[in-house]
Amino acid sequence: MFLTLVDFVGCFAFALSGGTRAVERRLDPFGIVFLAFVAATFGGIIRDVVIGAVPPVAFATWHYFAISCVAGFCCIFAYRLIARLAAPVAVFDALGLGLYVVVGTRKAMDAGLSPLMAAVLGMITAIGGGIGRDILAAQTPMVLHKEIYALAALIGALVVSIGDFYHLPGVPVAIVGGGLSILLRLAAMRWDWNLRPPTGRS
Amino acid sequence: MFLTLVDFVGCFAFALSGGTRAVERRLDPFGIVFLAFVAATFGGIIRDVVIGAVPPVAFATWHYFAISCVAGFCCIFAYRLIARLAAPVAVFDALGLGLYVVVGTRKAMDAGLSPLMAAVLGMITAIGGGIGRDILAAQTPMVLHKEIYALAALIGALVVSIGDFYHLPGVPVAIVGGGLSILLRLAAMRWDWNLRPPTGRS
Amino acid sequence: MFLTLVDFVGCFAFALSGGTRAVERRLDPFGIVFLAFVAATFGGIIRDVVIGAVPPVAFATWHYFAISCVAGFCCIFAYRLIARLAAPVAVFDALGLGLYVVVGTRKAMDAGLSPLMAAVLGMITAIGGGIGRDILAAQTPMVLHKEIYALAALIGALVVSIGDFYHLPGVPVAIVGGGLSILLRLAAMRWDWNLRPPTGRS
Repeated sequence: MFLTLVDFVGCFAFALSGGTRAVERRLDPFGIVFLAFVAATFGGIIRDVVIGAVPPVAFATWHYFAISCVAGFCCIFAYRLIARLAAPVAVFDALGLGLYVVVGTRKAMDAGLSPLMAAVLGMITAIGGGIGRDILAAQTPMVLHKEIYALAALIGALVVSIGDFYHLPGVPVAIVGGGLSILLRLAAMRWDWNLRPPTGRS
Repeated sequence: MFLTLVDFVGCFAFALSGGTRAVERRLDPFGIVFLAFVAATFGGIIRDVVIGAVPPVAFATWHYFAISCVAGFCCIFAYRLIARLAAPVAVFDALGLGLYVVVGTRKAMDAGLSPLMAAVLGMITAIGGGIGRDILAAQTPMVLHKEIYALAALIGALVVSIGDFYHLPGVPVAIVGGGLSILLRLAAMRWDWNLRPPTGRS
Repeated sequence: MFLTLVDFVGCFAFALSGGTRAVERRLDPFGIVFLAFVAATFGGIIRDVVIGAVPPVAFATWHYFAISCVAGFCCIFAYRLIARLAAPVAVFDALGLGLYVVVGTRKAMDAGLSPLMAAVLGMITAIGGGIGRDILAAQTPMVLHKEIYALAALIGALVVSIGDFYHLPGVPVAIVGGGLSILLRLAAMRWDWNLRPPTGRS
């Protein structure tokens, strides 16, 4: 119950990131809702297609689509409000990141992947939505050049997959792994941590 | 027989849209044929991968590839002619839209999706090719910011999926749903209907 | 054993092409490693998803991920060296092209595709990584507008699929098909062969 709530909150935050991007890029209302749906679900769709769990959750239930529609309409009718709420939205986004990492890594372990590749797929679950959103907006995915985001996801995912591999109790492992992703992400935002591009090229 | 013909006509129109875009973007002959193939088949490939019907129709038969090659060569050797025929091509494109919507929604219902998500996947079947084409051309997908296109597909798809859900007779449902998509699309072109981007951002 | 070595060398060369592109586009270290992984594996992931062989090889083993990480770190810490070694890297890339073509076409034939479509999928296996790399870099895929690359892959793939279809002995067919791709690619680089964009558009 609580997890479902966190799941929906994370989905809503991801969808808002897609919707606001769409407004900034001057897309029409359909494009806004569509980008919200992609940002909320693309990572999970990649995960499910890769492990053969089709149809993906995003199509097997209507919840993610409905949440994306609500988020899209919020972006259409209350863009200024959401833009002003950017900070709290980023916190929800970090929550979503941590939860998607846990769910994605678990599903990948259950599908028989090794801990390393399960963690990679768990990370892709968490960052895939943002990558899909940025590709549709014809931009280089933000996750590849700005801020610590994917790395926070990967570190948390490794905790989850290694914990699973050694059959440690599931709930504490999920809390530690997901929590680590969330804290790293929040800390990276708070203190503006970035990986620096190498200076090799003149 | 008649349906297969419409299917191939729609495929050809979609492929032309990919080929002409490739010519405009100064791609080489290979790129032109490739973009024609993507524009004609990407939506169906997404649909088949999402519902687990692999290999997708686009690879299980050679028809779509052959039609794409023909369309691509037309764009290479008769670009001016095709550019002058833009209006009739757009009509064929609308026919293809209606047919892809019906086929996509039906396949998604058969795979056990709910009517709502089957309609969403049917719409993606119809608009996916154009999205793939625009991503490869490094542009924001036209369907997300211009004209009523996806919405026409979605409305027709909903008619088909709801009709299927209540076991209404298949042929009339297909004609009404597909026809609605086609008419909405033609009307949107004729009277230049657009969804307007929200004005939230200054 | 020898084939595995060639496979890893090809994977490494593809990964380098992703990593150097990422450095040029000023991505951060995570983005560099990620683009290396995408360039090395995206074609194979498409192939495996299309024929239903999930999870794809890129996730079922850790080898490709590890090779991509090594290539990515090389790009981070030795970009100038790699840039100076562009010519030998391009030769390895051609080797990788030939090998990916053979492996991809074979797998597609085994999955029951027709020789024509198996060759198309084999070609996509070989060029898919570069397409994924360029899309993430928000650029039109190089393979669609520059140099003879995909065509070299397609011709070799056709040799392999037709040879398979007529049950010709596997090793010679692989050598002729893969070798043809490699030679065509090297010749195209050496004498700067290009397909010219059609001049239809003023």
